[in-house]
Amino acid sequence: MTAPLVEQLLGGSPLALAKVISLLEDESPDAPRLIDELHAHGSSAYRVGITGPPGAGKSTLADQLTKLYRQAGHKVGILVVDPTSRFTGGAVLGDRLRLRDHFLDDGVFIRSMASRGETGGLAARTAEVAGVLEAAGHDLIILETVGVGQTELDVAGAVDTTLVVLVPESGDEVQLMKAGIYEVADIFAINKSDREGAGSLQNLVEQQLGLKEEEGWKVPVCRTSATQGEGIAELKEHVDRHREYLESSGEQAVKSRGRARRLVENLMAPQVMRDFWTQPRREALNAGLDSTPPYQLARSLLDMT
Amino acid sequence: MTAPLVEQLLGGSPLALAKVISLLEDESPDAPRLIDELHAHGSSAYRVGITGPPGAGKSTLADQLTKLYRQAGHKVGILVVDPTSRFTGGAVLGDRLRLRDHFLDDGVFIRSMASRGETGGLAARTAEVAGVLEAAGHDLIILETVGVGQTELDVAGAVDTTLVVLVPESGDEVQLMKAGIYEVADIFAINKSDREGAGSLQNLVEQQLGLKEEEGWKVPVCRTSATQGEGIAELKEHVDRHREYLESSGEQAVKSRGRARRLVENLMAPQVMRDFWTQPRREALNAGLDSTPPYQLARSLLDMT
Repeated sequence: MTAPLVEQLLGGSPLALAKVISLLEDESPDAPRLIDELHAHGSSAYRVGITGPPGAGKSTLADQLTKLYRQAGHKVGILVVDPTSRFTGGAVLGDRLRLRDHFLDDGVFIRSMASRGETGGLAARTAEVAGVLEAAGHDLIILETVGVGQTELDVAGAVDTTLVVLVPESGDEVQLMKAGIYEVADIFAINKSDREGAGSLQNLVEQQLGLKEEEGWKVPVCRTSATQGEGIAELKEHVDRHREYLESSGEQAVKSRGRARRLVENLMAPQVMRDFWTQPRREALNAGLDSTPPYQLARSLLDMT
Repeated sequence: MTAPLVEQLLGGSPLALAKVISLLEDESPDAPRLIDELHAHGSSAYRVGITGPPGAGKSTLADQLTKLYRQAGHKVGILVVDPTSRFTGGAVLGDRLRLRDHFLDDGVFIRSMASRGETGGLAARTAEVAGVLEAAGHDLIILETVGVGQTELDVAGAVDTTLVVLVPESGDEVQLMKAGIYEVADIFAINKSDREGAGSLQNLVEQQLGLKEEEGWKVPVCRTSATQGEGIAELKEHVDRHREYLESSGEQAVKSRGRARRLVENLMAPQVMRDFWTQPRREALNAGLDSTPPYQLARSLLDMT
């Protein structure tokens, strides 16, 4: 049953692609075999992560970049990771509007990856879907993530170039930013840069970047106005330059390998935990809850064989 | 060294409390022993979770509820869980402003729990800190969480009463809301209810709640204006009624037990994974990455002994 599906997907069928992704998301028993079959194909897609606070214009920026990459002949896959979508329905609504734009273009595939309650599972599932997009011939994958919580950082660890989008209104927040942002950003884009405060935000970010040790890649801070399409060409140049830097420095190979390693680690974790929680351990946990302090109980459960 | 600290904490010293929480957060080797020593004390605190989209007024509502519970003689601990704080610095800024309000009141303790990159660790750490607050005599704990991503749901699983805060502006979003929200909410508060659309949002939420099977607790939808202090007394009554419901129905005992079980499970998970990744497994993973598809590699690593 899966073989023709794989062939259709490799042949570029958008229907087969959607079908395979649904099988993954529904945790079909066929999913592991499909992933393994597809694994031999693809794996050369470049991955760009776009992250930033809600309302910064990440989707518009992703769409504008996509247009440029389409013109350059790339096949683009966009995965929208929105762990808050339970609340806002953002991913769902956003998809509908955006799908309309790219409706007639087989070279663009958009999919939202909403959290469905599993810890750590979103990162694993996103990595799997990205692999499927690669096998289907997408050579540029954009991972768009809302905010920078844990899930988003997991996802950011899965890309080659991380683009952090800020808006002039973020000024005060940037001063309070944890160093984490500066650690993950390969490129900063100050979006909505026609608004007041864009210049001083750019100065602020550049100043804080200046405090970092200069070695290797120098993080650029560029200004965009995504709705006007301004600054996008420059932004794309930065992405392309970063890609060249990663490849020439050898960092690309390290990143790809780390990504493959994490994919395996992530997909194993739930099974390891299931194997650990044997019936005797479950029973010992229930029996000990009332009488034993938590760490002492944990130690005794770890010591059980 | 820890014994006097524990005694001081049990005696109500805010300094000792802050010290113990810092030891937990820094993952001091003394932390497990402290947690176990404190475990015998407390555990009777009632836990209220407040969640909702950014800007809904959760903090103001938490502060107003705190005032009422202080007047009723409770000692209140507020834990602010903000997985996005890397970006906004929200928890840090919020704490400073709010600490000023409660600065002279030893009966209120506020602490922000920011994510620091560990998967699943935030929920475990929050549960531990809540346990410490209990031991220090806080009999009402408010867990305030931003948004409803995975981390927040983990945290919501750790409370007795979950209060979901919406604002009239959420109207469109509510229609797109996933059922998840209706599953976790014990009480809805429509905050900023002097604004246009509060009535129709209330109708909408009540209508969607009406689609649920009626059995046991009937989820109330109340209107508040936290900055004006309006509707807070009614909200507190709903919380108190829910508490009585949980106790009389026996659900409270089930919840407490589930919470204790998850605390142990959560603090064991990292160690189980560390134990699993033995040196031979690490080496087999690295050796197999280039040649073996991910699921096949995963299976062979799981089969290793």
